[in-house]
Amino acid sequence: MAILPQPILNLINAFERLPGIGPKSASRLAFFLLRGQDDLANTLAQALLELKSATSYCAICYNITLSSQDVCDICASTQRDKSVICVVEEPLDVLAVERTGGFNGQYHVLHGVISPIEGIGPEDLKIKALIDRVEKGGISEIIIATNPSMEGDVTAQYLQKQLLKFGIRITRLARGLPVGGDMEYADQNTLLRALAGRQEL
Amino acid sequence: MAILPQPILNLINAFERLPGIGPKSASRLAFFLLRGQDDLANTLAQALLELKSATSYCAICYNITLSSQDVCDICASTQRDKSVICVVEEPLDVLAVERTGGFNGQYHVLHGVISPIEGIGPEDLKIKALIDRVEKGGISEIIIATNPSMEGDVTAQYLQKQLLKFGIRITRLARGLPVGGDMEYADQNTLLRALAGRQEL
Repeated sequence: MAILPQPILNLINAFERLPGIGPKSASRLAFFLLRGQDDLANTLAQALLELKSATSYCAICYNITLSSQDVCDICASTQRDKSVICVVEEPLDVLAVERTGGFNGQYHVLHGVISPIEGIGPEDLKIKALIDRVEKGGISEIIIATNPSMEGDVTAQYLQKQLLKFGIRITRLARGLPVGGDMEYADQNTLLRALAGRQEL
Repeated sequence: MAILPQPILNLINAFERLPGIGPKSASRLAFFLLRGQDDLANTLAQALLELKSATSYCAICYNITLSSQDVCDICASTQRDKSVICVVEEPLDVLAVERTGGFNGQYHVLHGVISPIEGIGPEDLKIKALIDRVEKGGISEIIIATNPSMEGDVTAQYLQKQLLKFGIRITRLARGLPVGGDMEYADQNTLLRALAGRQEL
């Protein structure tokens, strides 16, 4: 005897495949949606169905954009500095940088990082497209904003090597203590970086 | 300029309405689904669409069942003791009791608890239906398995008062130290209950 009806099991199984959602959370979500008086389940379903059909990648920077447009709003904008490209791993990172309000250049989304363990090499990322953009000229600086992780570092080093011949400025986001963080709780590596990168007051 | 395309914002907004999913998790889930090579987004959408259309409540115990059947598998089963009813708050609680393998009776799902703060009274729950079931006869014991919370206690007391006239056995799940728990970390109330409910070895 099945304890739960199949339609609920299907939903629980689908939720479980999402990152950070275990069996218990998946059940809770399924029953929350079941109990919900409003149309949340249908709204969510509709949004999921439209997700892939209504979006595509920008032909220039490979950020997510509407499938009705060729290039994203940032690449199409005349207000933004086209001579600086911030290279990020994922579209979510574009969002993070945009939220700071401190960058007015363009982006390039790699869609991953070099990771030998997961079998991801440079050719699996949008690195060739980045080099093509730089080759076309008009670029004065590349800010490499990959994550401060092992893979992010390897990818940054690879990019640096590939871009060296263009003689443009290549920078990396600063490492150090997070704002609002507590020195006491900073890990050894972060503190080491903060020391090495100390600045004059 | 919208930073994210509308279809993604729609999905993030829908995810955010789920319990335990904040803005950051919602974005992460949306981009995970976007990046996913397989059909997870569509599978999830399909499961959501079928959730409400393919399920309904059992006409006897109000547990979730397939909309193609009138009563759930447990109520329809001839293998189960029809004289004992375990009263629970939510369908998920049926699942929890079933998983123990220690109960072979029937269930009754209240679909909530009495909560004056949230404006939920006895008439909003499936209490009338429970009394009707008892009135029909053949019931020897009601096990009240509402949560060990303030609302669960109030609901249990209300049920006890309503069921007293039938002269049947009314029990409540035992309180005490959780198995595998550490006495040192047990809260005061739990320890008090464990003391009060101590048993002969």
